[in-house]
Formats: sequence, structure tokens, C-alpha cells
Amino acid sequence: MGEHRFMKRAIELSREGVCGGHGFPFGTVIVKNDEIIGEGFNQVPSTNDPTAHAEVIAIRKAGARLETFDLSGCDLYVNGVPCCMCLGAILWSRVSRVFYALDMQACVDIGLPHEHLFKDFSRPLGERSIPFVAMPELNHEARAVYELWANSPDTIKP
Amino acid sequence: MGEHRFMKRAIELSREGVCGGHGFPFGTVIVKNDEIIGEGFNQVPSTNDPTAHAEVIAIRKAGARLETFDLSGCDLYVNGVPCCMCLGAILWSRVSRVFYALDMQACVDIGLPHEHLFKDFSRPLGERSIPFVAMPELNHEARAVYELWANSPDTIKP
Repeated sequence: MGEHRFMKRAIELSREGVCGGHGFPFGTVIVKNDEIIGEGFNQVPSTNDPTAHAEVIAIRKAGARLETFDLSGCDLYVNGVPCCMCLGAILWSRVSRVFYALDMQACVDIGLPHEHLFKDFSRPLGERSIPFVAMPELNHEARAVYELWANSPDTIKP
Repeated sequence: MGEHRFMKRAIELSREGVCGGHGFPFGTVIVKNDEIIGEGFNQVPSTNDPTAHAEVIAIRKAGARLETFDLSGCDLYVNGVPCCMCLGAILWSRVSRVFYALDMQACVDIGLPHEHLFKDFSRPLGERSIPFVAMPELNHEARAVYELWANSPDTIKP
């Protein structure tokens, strides 16, 4: 089971972010071997960065601290269940577990679009809420770079 | 329809990222009123940042340039169809359209997990590939911050 003190710190960060005028009400800590190795609160409006969610900031700091983009063995604590972008960041980071306090309904209750945004993910490209336009005439040029990367022994693979 | 020159620049960035040893084979440009206002290539391994995808970097730069977290009216060009994290970033950024060259199968062909990672998004929390652990005993404390944010006239809403 997760540690209350880490979730309490995540909640404290969410409060710090709101009271400091930084952004939306979210705070995250990332823990490895009982130690906090990255933390953050939402800074979307204060930094004009749509990606500056608490989880993304904490993951970025944890990677820098551990000097790896593989956070296997780390736990992530967040006051509210992560949005779709942060779920993606969590999956890429390979953190081992996610602890959360408030569920998606709590986001809906305060008017945040988290639940709504998930709907696009199970839709085909052509049915998403914004247009996805294919440019297949440039496939050949684009594929050459994919293959260059895939076939080089020097490139780091995820 | 999208402009070839912008997609060609996205492909060029993907090549620059691979040849410079920065990361995985992706490049992105964001365009407003026929002008590039943000661009980037993947820098995950070179910066130890799991979130440093081309789209995220370009979105961040575009927000800084336009001094807003709302990229409505912008178009995003990327050499390959975005992953789940970047789809989330795209939705939050509110770019108006996404142009891409290579489809998801091209990612599969070079061994990237993009398609696989999407599977978690239509699963309930309890069936995801990593454990999501609820800590409802801290709901009261967490909800107080949500409500503080929601009820304050001074906080910026997304």
C-alpha cells in the first residue's frame, strides 16, 4: 500500500500551486526507495505551457535526477486521477504504480474536461474532435528517417 | 489542405534529431498564419525526459511564443501520427488541425510501442497495464483544494 505522507505532500503541492497562482489544482510526487525524487504542481497558465501538468513536471524532474528516461521502480502520487496526456506520460516513463486520491468524477464536479478528453482515444483518427489530415505523398521521405533510426546500431531505443 | 513545406520541415527536424543523436525519429512544427511559431524534435534519451517528444516540445515553444496556453487557430505538422501522450497534449493545446505523414503501422514496423500504449486508454482504471491505487481516505483533504480552486474568482480556468 502507498504511504499517506507522500499523498499528503502531493495534496500540499496542489494547494501551493493554487495559492501561488500557478495553475490548476494538481500536485504530484515521484518516489523511489522511500525518497521523493521529483515533484511538481500544475503551471499551465503561469508558464503558458499546455503541457505543464503536475505529473509531467514531476516526471521530467525525476528523469533528470536519476539520469534516465526509465522510471521503473518508482511510484507516482497525484491528488487526482491523471488526465489522458499524463496517462501517456506515465506509460512512457514506466513508473511502476500510480496512487491517487480523487477520482474522475471529482474533476467533472469542478468543471474540468478530463473525462471528456479521454473520449478521443478510442476513436479512429477520422472521428476525433479535431481533424487529423494524412499527407501520404510525403510518406517516402518520412519513412526514410524512421528506417535510418531503426537500422542504426547507435540509436537508443525506447 | 496542409502545406508541403511545413511537413517537409517536420521531416527535416526528425532527421536532425536522429542524426544529432537526440532521440527517436520525430519532428514537429506548429504553424499560425502561415508562419512557424514552434518546432522540435524528440529529445527523450538525450535529456533523460520521458515527455520530451517532438510535439510536446513544439507545443511548449508555441505557447511561450504566443504567450498563451490556448493554441486555437494553429496547425500542427508531425512526420508520424502522434502517440497517446502527444494526442493528450494536442487536445489540451487546442490546436485546430493535425497533419501527419506516416500512420501508426509505420511505427509498429520499426518496433515503437505507440499503438500498444493506446490500449490502456479505453480500459477502466483497474485493468490498466500498471496498478492505479485509490487512496480515498485522503479524499476530503484533496477535495478541499479542488474546491478552493473552483470557487475562487481569481483562478484561471482551462
